[in-house]
Amino acid sequence: MSNCIDCTPAQAAALLLEQERVTILIHRHPDGDTIGSGMALLHALRDMGKQVRLHSPDPISKRYGLVVEDEDTTAGLENSYVVAVDVADPALLGRLEEEYGHRVDLCVDHHPSNKRYAKNLLLRGEYASCCEAVYELLLALGCAITPVMANGIYLGASTDTGCFRYGNTTANTHYVASKAIEAGANHGMINRVIFETVTPQRMVFESRVKETLQYFYGGHCALMYQLQSAFEGLDVEESELEGISNIPRTIEGVEVGVTVREQADGSCRISLRSSDFVDASEICQRFGGGGHKRAAGCTMHTTPEQAGMSIVKAIGDYFPEESL
Amino acid sequence: MSNCIDCTPAQAAALLLEQERVTILIHRHPDGDTIGSGMALLHALRDMGKQVRLHSPDPISKRYGLVVEDEDTTAGLENSYVVAVDVADPALLGRLEEEYGHRVDLCVDHHPSNKRYAKNLLLRGEYASCCEAVYELLLALGCAITPVMANGIYLGASTDTGCFRYGNTTANTHYVASKAIEAGANHGMINRVIFETVTPQRMVFESRVKETLQYFYGGHCALMYQLQSAFEGLDVEESELEGISNIPRTIEGVEVGVTVREQADGSCRISLRSSDFVDASEICQRFGGGGHKRAAGCTMHTTPEQAGMSIVKAIGDYFPEESL
Repeated sequence: MSNCIDCTPAQAAALLLEQERVTILIHRHPDGDTIGSGMALLHALRDMGKQVRLHSPDPISKRYGLVVEDEDTTAGLENSYVVAVDVADPALLGRLEEEYGHRVDLCVDHHPSNKRYAKNLLLRGEYASCCEAVYELLLALGCAITPVMANGIYLGASTDTGCFRYGNTTANTHYVASKAIEAGANHGMINRVIFETVTPQRMVFESRVKETLQYFYGGHCALMYQLQSAFEGLDVEESELEGISNIPRTIEGVEVGVTVREQADGSCRISLRSSDFVDASEICQRFGGGGHKRAAGCTMHTTPEQAGMSIVKAIGDYFPEESL
Repeated sequence: MSNCIDCTPAQAAALLLEQERVTILIHRHPDGDTIGSGMALLHALRDMGKQVRLHSPDPISKRYGLVVEDEDTTAGLENSYVVAVDVADPALLGRLEEEYGHRVDLCVDHHPSNKRYAKNLLLRGEYASCCEAVYELLLALGCAITPVMANGIYLGASTDTGCFRYGNTTANTHYVASKAIEAGANHGMINRVIFETVTPQRMVFESRVKETLQYFYGGHCALMYQLQSAFEGLDVEESELEGISNIPRTIEGVEVGVTVREQADGSCRISLRSSDFVDASEICQRFGGGGHKRAAGCTMHTTPEQAGMSIVKAIGDYFPEESL
């Protein structure tokens, strides 16, 4: 691992130009950045006449179909040069770690925590997305950026920054997005599919659950119920509920947001989200759950109302000067 | 009106450089783009030693405090050169129309539907935000872009594109955002304040209006009402309603989203948003309104239900094979 050689985009490009056969690896539970990076590089190398395959540890969600198209991502190429994109640690190769973990020839990444496991490393720790590093690599390869590559680049830059909303977005992220759009990225469509599309069912469900919002401790705590009755007449899939638990925390003045989800078996799933100082994990641990400081959860075997009030009371320790 | 002279950024800059006193006008119900444009230009001209005031037809929401700071926007300067930013039509000057409508010296705008009411017009109809045109004007003025100007530019570019999410976003929007961040725009803070924080009132209001959603033409058209009754018991500011008009279009399968807002005077304000092919501006023009291809509006003096049905019927021309 100590033999890892740091590369500039030009040096990484020189290594790739020598290859005939390349296998590109992406990380497990693939997200927009690893997929976009992989697909942009795959098409760039193919356009140069090389044999290239993308190999993914896990199936790629249909949402990303717009950049992946009909690629077979289930296998790599034999005897090929191995490139990992957006993979900070060989453990993130999941089921592919055993096969490839020890023999990655080139890693392109943007995680400062990169484990330096590859023979060569093009690392841009200051970038919000790996795609920004891949964009530099494509330029160094001297290839014309086609719309399909541009889609990949844009997908990574936008998904890793919450569509340019998060604080990690830099001037460079916008610069690369600008170049991707110039090169033909279908950004309107990508954003609609990834960030904007809500099903009519979700719309109704969201409206119903928002009506249950209650506030405590001078508005610093918001509580929302997802009762079984909110599902009435709706055929909502689990995947349509993404982000519902974040709603209470996005309200002005709210430090900690709680959602209580009544489950089919009568138990309640509690989710906590906090902004600045409430340790969500610590609170959920008191009820046998856990998680991260700003996002945690637990399960309670009681009524939604009792579950909600138990959590809200526990949260009170963080607001000693406010009344319930 | 036929005497309106089209200007390049250099020509508009030359006109401004001659002035000692400038009053900048923004449009009624001021949004991020008109405020950001106005503030960026105000600070640029002030830095050049000119006397400048921003004059707003309506109070500026506290949310925009980050760029407006303690500016007094309630009055213009006497005997000054008058510049309107992001004001497509003198009627959009609201209560200031009578005073200024006939004597705007320079208009900087990005609406293709601009009424050409000003003596000079710097129009960039292909831009997503007026701030992009203002950015070019600042460059032409030869001024150094300070963080407070950069905040204004970023605010306009981000708010008019739903934080770079809508299809109207172009390579140039990202380019200008990139330059604004380089110049010191506090984009992380702006995005948190504008895009992430929702007031409790807005949460209730949103929930109420979503309940009115109706679908037409096989789900390709969604219609939502903002009735006066939805405001009941809520003290919602205009600025808290930003983005409400976009909701119907974000629903899966929806090509065109319509919102009908019942106004206090009994008239209805219609907003149209489209995804791919419905020309929102063309439809709104049939009812005396206008705007952009993907976002337009008009006013109707009838009941909300009749207004909604009139628009939905007009939209039918784009879906000849679907029944209502």
